[in-house]
Amino acid sequence: MPSFITKRGVEFAQTDMAGFAHFSEFARWMESAEHELFRSVGLSVTMRIDGRHVSWPRRSCSFEFLRPLRFEDEFDISLWIKEIGKSSVTWAAEFLRERTICATGTCTTVCCDIPVDGPVTAISVPNEIRERLAPFQNKETES
Amino acid sequence: MPSFITKRGVEFAQTDMAGFAHFSEFARWMESAEHELFRSVGLSVTMRIDGRHVSWPRRSCSFEFLRPLRFEDEFDISLWIKEIGKSSVTWAAEFLRERTICATGTCTTVCCDIPVDGPVTAISVPNEIRERLAPFQNKETES
Amino acid sequence: MPSFITKRGVEFAQTDMAGFAHFSEFARWMESAEHELFRSVGLSVTMRIDGRHVSWPRRSCSFEFLRPLRFEDEFDISLWIKEIGKSSVTWAAEFLRERTICATGTCTTVCCDIPVDGPVTAISVPNEIRERLAPFQNKETES
Amino acid sequence: MPSFITKRGVEFAQTDMAGFAHFSEFARWMESAEHELFRSVGLSVTMRIDGRHVSWPRRSCSFEFLRPLRFEDEFDISLWIKEIGKSSVTWAAEFLRERTICATGTCTTVCCDIPVDGPVTAISVPNEIRERLAPFQNKETES
Repeated sequence: MPSFITKRGVEFAQTDMAGFAHFSEFARWMESAEHELFRSVGLSVTMRIDGRHVSWPRRSCSFEFLRPLRFEDEFDISLWIKEIGKSSVTWAAEFLRERTICATGTCTTVCCDIPVDGPVTAISVPNEIRERLAPFQNKETES
Repeated sequence: MPSFITKRGVEFAQTDMAGFAHFSEFARWMESAEHELFRSVGLSVTMRIDGRHVSWPRRSCSFEFLRPLRFEDEFDISLWIKEIGKSSVTWAAEFLRERTICATGTCTTVCCDIPVDGPVTAISVPNEIRERLAPFQNKETES
Repeated sequence: MPSFITKRGVEFAQTDMAGFAHFSEFARWMESAEHELFRSVGLSVTMRIDGRHVSWPRRSCSFEFLRPLRFEDEFDISLWIKEIGKSSVTWAAEFLRERTICATGTCTTVCCDIPVDGPVTAISVPNEIRERLAPFQNKETES
Repeated sequence: MPSFITKRGVEFAQTDMAGFAHFSEFARWMESAEHELFRSVGLSVTMRIDGRHVSWPRRSCSFEFLRPLRFEDEFDISLWIKEIGKSSVTWAAEFLRERTICATGTCTTVCCDIPVDGPVTAISVPNEIRERLAPFQNKETES
């Protein structure tokens, strides 16, 4: 089972006046799950490798909202990698409450060198990172 | 020119440790521009019509991030309607800093009756709303 | 030991361009710890009791920031009750990273009846809630 | 009249399931008003002066919440300086909807040198900044 699963709950501040978790929170939850996955394999989403400050700006993201989440709802985020390219990683996620999919998301991140001074530059995904992320790649689960 | 244009600026709390506006903020900005458009034609995104509490949950959204926005950057949001369906409206937006596109977004919202008690139900877009939104429909600008 | 202790970590979206957790996040963390404490004794911060919709708007809050928290810092929130009044509860919290206090907070909440229609009204703290919160009262720990 | 006045509105994403602007938003609004005041006198809250990266971490803040703000409420933030110390500035604010005070806030910020590498250090408020902020000092309005 190649996906990474982590639990979250809906906080009061994440709800809106309609009583639902605000849709922008899914983007934050998906990112926080990705960072937790990085930590689970001994990496960080922002780290120094070979003198570079490597981080992962987002190139794109998309979400489908199927069922609302409400205050104190507990849910799982199931996260996996759709594709690792030369310098990008495309993540996919499902948000499940009691095994029912409430939302799905995809997010393409680009491996970048972010120097203190100077421009942000896309770089090849370092082998150290590529190898540790590989187990989460899972093209088969895509519909 | 059928699109609606509104100005925003990047607040300190909207930046992240990479020095950029966090990507989830674009979802919030796009929604706030949509609500401002509603107000500009005498509507609200949450209002009572014919005894119903009408509001617009999001069904999906997607964003492309082309150039980062930084603290105190001022930018325009250009917002228009790609499509008005029976019960949905699909919005499109461009985020422009000095006429350069920094990000684009689309968002499909569903016209719903949200009673205090009882389930959320999709309804046909009321004529009053449909007529006031019509001027912002702009299929031609799509690429 | 009457205080309630819960763990949190600093998410990327909670940092700002200075590299620290934004100061407004402490208000959210303290509230989320309070809600977790409610759940730990079988309550919710928003619940129906005797036909009323009881919830806890904030009357005031204050925070002292002693040391910054950074991305991926893990910390404990130690939460206790300074005072339970007729209709209010004053909470106090310490935010500790490796046993060092990084911030402190206090927050006074007011027990209210929040009807769907009609005004918000302060009410006496229901006995059921008062009894379950009592173990967390801890005047002695105050400086 | 030495206070700085700026307008804000309550966005949908800033509301919570109780239908009010979440209390943590007042901290963000007050900070954004402070930054707007800086810009109004040709400064920025984060700028280079004499080779230093000068910014203003918060040492403390406190808020009183008197009346709730709701979605689409428009309000004024009235901001002034209670005290300029050697290295700190204490701000005070009132949040007014139709001339009625809905909330008040105070916030003490510390003028710091924040180097890219190395510790954050409190510094004396540079004269250039002190002079430009002086007109907003207003001890008389305090209660």
